[in-house]
Formats: sequence, structure tokens, C-alpha cells
Amino acid sequence: MEDISRRLKEFEKANGLEGAMVECVPNFSEGRRKEVIDAIASSIVSVEGANLLHVTSDHDHNRTVMTIAGPPAAVAEAALAAMAKAKELIDLRVHKGEHPRIGATDVVPFVPVGKITIDYCARLAWLVGELAWERFGIPVYYYESAARRPERKNLADIRKGEFEGLSSEVLTNPDRRPDVGGPSLHESAGATVVGARKFLVAYNVNLKTEDITIARRIAKAIRERDGGLPGVKALGFMIEEKKMAQVSMNLVDCDVTPPLRAIEAIRAEAKRYGVELAEGELIGIIPLKYLMATAAESLMLPSLGEDQVLEALVWKKGKDGR
Amino acid sequence: MEDISRRLKEFEKANGLEGAMVECVPNFSEGRRKEVIDAIASSIVSVEGANLLHVTSDHDHNRTVMTIAGPPAAVAEAALAAMAKAKELIDLRVHKGEHPRIGATDVVPFVPVGKITIDYCARLAWLVGELAWERFGIPVYYYESAARRPERKNLADIRKGEFEGLSSEVLTNPDRRPDVGGPSLHESAGATVVGARKFLVAYNVNLKTEDITIARRIAKAIRERDGGLPGVKALGFMIEEKKMAQVSMNLVDCDVTPPLRAIEAIRAEAKRYGVELAEGELIGIIPLKYLMATAAESLMLPSLGEDQVLEALVWKKGKDGR
Repeated sequence: MEDISRRLKEFEKANGLEGAMVECVPNFSEGRRKEVIDAIASSIVSVEGANLLHVTSDHDHNRTVMTIAGPPAAVAEAALAAMAKAKELIDLRVHKGEHPRIGATDVVPFVPVGKITIDYCARLAWLVGELAWERFGIPVYYYESAARRPERKNLADIRKGEFEGLSSEVLTNPDRRPDVGGPSLHESAGATVVGARKFLVAYNVNLKTEDITIARRIAKAIRERDGGLPGVKALGFMIEEKKMAQVSMNLVDCDVTPPLRAIEAIRAEAKRYGVELAEGELIGIIPLKYLMATAAESLMLPSLGEDQVLEALVWKKGKDGR
Repeated sequence: MEDISRRLKEFEKANGLEGAMVECVPNFSEGRRKEVIDAIASSIVSVEGANLLHVTSDHDHNRTVMTIAGPPAAVAEAALAAMAKAKELIDLRVHKGEHPRIGATDVVPFVPVGKITIDYCARLAWLVGELAWERFGIPVYYYESAARRPERKNLADIRKGEFEGLSSEVLTNPDRRPDVGGPSLHESAGATVVGARKFLVAYNVNLKTEDITIARRIAKAIRERDGGLPGVKALGFMIEEKKMAQVSMNLVDCDVTPPLRAIEAIRAEAKRYGVELAEGELIGIIPLKYLMATAAESLMLPSLGEDQVLEALVWKKGKDGR
């Protein structure tokens, strides 16, 4: 911990980021052996200050996603502890699963919360990448906002060939080599893609219609890929048990397109078909910032801040150990 | 602390209120002598778990309002500690100020936060009232949701005659006597009005007009007193430095009329005069619950809960001492 704390502290102080929080959502190539998943979770929980908020395993993908949050140094140290444990217990040479992967710890994204910036998370990613190589001999690729080459922004491009293909390709093709360490991948733990991205909000809106074509048309109209709102990914589905068509969204940049803007766009599009909205659905968690932004807009309070929220004042005081 | 903790713990457990929070906003009859105000604040801060969020003193009123929040037992103990200190340092026989008052500690309202109910806060008020008399010999009146007689719901009715008048009236008129202790008021510290009320949200909306009569008409249309929205107090003002008329509100029951409903009503009324809204203004703090309710309504998320807010999950874990 000393290592990271020391290297982060000065930067945080210089940038007024003390007391801030990051999220980290590491993906591990194990979704079946409970004892392995538990051991990785324990390695995270054992780091003081790191909070393990969620663990989601998928049997078919043979993959587990864990959500960690807390002070940057603690979260970075927890991610490293988990990488060490995954390296010890997962052997990619015998791993099978539907989901593409190149490492025992496959992806480690750092996500800004509150006043933390995406640039800060990129620095954190670089620090963790260096330490993963130094401490455990795990080579690292950097992606999204931490990418050091434009062709590595996209996770899928880095993972091309997966563990099996990439392990041999790095031996002959310098363009595929890791950003840190290597050039060979680790023989059993592969390599890890470490990076920084914004918080992903999974937000669905059900329509008062059973016509899935309307949901699909609305999704197409609002998603970035087809010229819609920036940072919006959207698909149309039919929710059988509710007998409602649904516009299912991933909002990957809520600073640019917040949830309120997204539902307003859906409402406007739905009106073209004479369809009303039934209800929204938030999958998983959302940072306070985006809820506050919604309340701030609805109540016309542009300067609304966390320091005006009663619970935030009390919880933070408790956390700081007054 | 033992006293209160023991008596509260069983009730909290039976009602699923563990880990909950209350606010307490005691008013003291001293707004000028800094050393007295500081000593009262110190007595609050010295109680473990009690957070002193705000201190606001008014010279003309010669009165100070402090905002405490935290676990119920800690907040109750902090309120009692402050009452003891105020009794020691404030002598109402020599106190002068514009604001009506009957005690060194004049009013002690307990306010529910999160899942805590107003009934729970009334119980807390009764407990604190009994202990104020047992420990310090301060007689207590109960008001609002903690009132034990219908004619004591209203603070102004209890305070009629103020310290000077009430001190002599209690000697002859049984109807004016304290609910706990007495019948005489304390010779220097008077009596304290303890009670339970909902969180008061101070929320103003500026209009794109300099015509104060429009703000006044809107205020009249939306306030409860004149047949408007329940739990809304409103007045029209002119904000000279902004050259805008303002509808200034106290929302005293946001469960019934939340801020979003209030601004929608103002917008609808303003439309009659062809006037648009310029901006809102939130004075002081607001419980997370009401911001979440605003976001939940705007985003059509009826079941949105605190356990979906990233920071709430982390801060609470820290507070619970994981």
C-alpha cells in the first residue's frame, strides 16, 4: 500500500482530490469455481478502505465481474491484490468460456466518481499496470482513456485472437506486444487490459405498447451509432412478462448525455407513434453525481452540490474519522 | 449515553431502524457572545457519533441555530449536552433579543432522515424531555408531532408571554404548566420546547420579471394557507441585486408536496402572466431522500433506493466500520 499511497498522495494534494473516490470493475476469467471467486473477493476485502460492492458471476461466460469502490490508493491496491490471487488460481490454458479473454484478470477499468476526473483514473491505470508487471510479472495493455496508442482505445481490438492467439502473435508481431512488460504473455495468467472509462449507467425505459418495432425504431433514433445522442447505446426488446416493448440503454458518458436527456429523447420519439412511456428501470448502481444532476435540472438548481446533501455530510465525516 | 442507547436500542431493533439517522436543530438564546456559542458547539462535538453540520447566529435576534445529525442516541445525547451547557452559560433574566423565547435552550426539534419516521422522532423528543428534567431540572413543553395536548401543536401558542410572562403565569394557571417537570420554570434557564417535525426545505424560485406583484400572486396561489399546496409556505419578494421577483418557499412536508411539485405549480401559475422561471435556489441542506424522489420522478424510477447510489453504499460501509 505504501507504494501507491505515496505516489498518489502528492498528485491528489496538488489537484484538490483528497477524500475522493474511484470505482474499479475488474473482470476475472472464472465464473464457475466458487472457491476461486471467493478467494479473489477475499483478497479485495482484505485491503483496508476498499469496499467490494458487487460480485456477478456468469457460468456460460465462465467470468466474474466485481465492483470495488473507495479511496483511489485502496482501490488500486485491492485491484492488484485480486490480480495476484487470480494469477495464482486461474490457468488460462485450461479455461473455456463464451466470453473473449486474454488474462486470468482480463480487464481492469478504473472509473471516476464525484470530483475525480477521467485523466486521474488513467494515471491510476498506468500506475497499476506498472506495478502488476513489477510485482507479479503480468504484462499489461492500456485501453480507452488510458490507451497509449490510438488503435488500443477499443477493448475488442486488443483482445483479438484471445489468450491462445495473442500468446503466439506477440512473439512475431511487435504491434501486438503489451504496453508494459512482456513481450511474452504470462504462461498461465496471460495479460491484463487496464484502463479508465466513465461510469456506465444501464437504464431501460418500458413503453405502453407491445410493438417491439416501435422500441427498435426509438432505439435507432436515439443511439450514437446511428446519429443520435452521444454516449448512448440502445436496443429495442420485448419484455414478455410485462407485455411491454422496452428501449434498453447503456449510457457510457452521462456527463454528455445524462439519463434525463435520454428519457426526454425517448418520450419525444415515442410521441411520433402515439405511444406513452410506462416506467424506467435502473440496473445496478448509479453515482450520486448523476442523480444530483437530474434533481438539479428538474429543480433549476445549477450549483447544487454534495455539500448540500445531509447524508453526504454525515457519511463523509464518519468516513474521514472525525 | 448508556441511558439513551439502552432505551432506544430495543425500539430500533423491533422497528428495523438500526443504522438510521436523525437531525436535530436546537435554538439557543444567545447570538452575540462568541465564547458561549463556541462552548455549546463544543459540547455537541464532544459526543461521539454526533455531527455538528451548521451553526447560524443572529445578532439582532440574539439567537443561534445549530444543526446536528447522526445516529438517534448520539444526537439525543448531544442535544442534552448542549442544553446543560446553555443552562450553565445563559441567563434569561438578562437576555434581550427580537425573537420570542422561553428558554436558554429555546426549541429542540427532532427531524426524521431516511427511513426514520416522525413517530420515532416524537418518542425521541419525549425521552430527551424526561432526561432534561431528571438531569438538569429544566422543565419541558412538547410541540408539533410530539405535542401531548392539541393546543400545544403550535410553537407560538406555547411561547405566549415569553420567559418573563410564562414564568409568573405557570404559578397560577395550570393550563400553561410544562408537560414535564415544573410547575415553575427554571429561574435562569426557563423552559425548553422539545418536539418532532419534518425536515424543512427552504427553496426559492426566481422569475424572469421585476414585477413583485406577480411573485406575490403566485405565492398566494400555491401556499397552503390560501388553499394551495399542503405543506407549502410562500411569500413574494424582490431580489434587488438580480432584478428579479422571487417566490420564496418553506416546504414543511416534502413527503406530501416535494420540491418538484412546488416548482411545477409555480411554473404553471407564472404562465398565466406570461412569465418564465429564471432559476431555483436551495437554502442550506436537503435530505438525500428528497433529491432521490425528484430524480425518481423525473426518470420514472418509482423504486429507486439508497442502495442503488454508489456513494451511499461506500459511505455507509465506512460509517458502520466494516
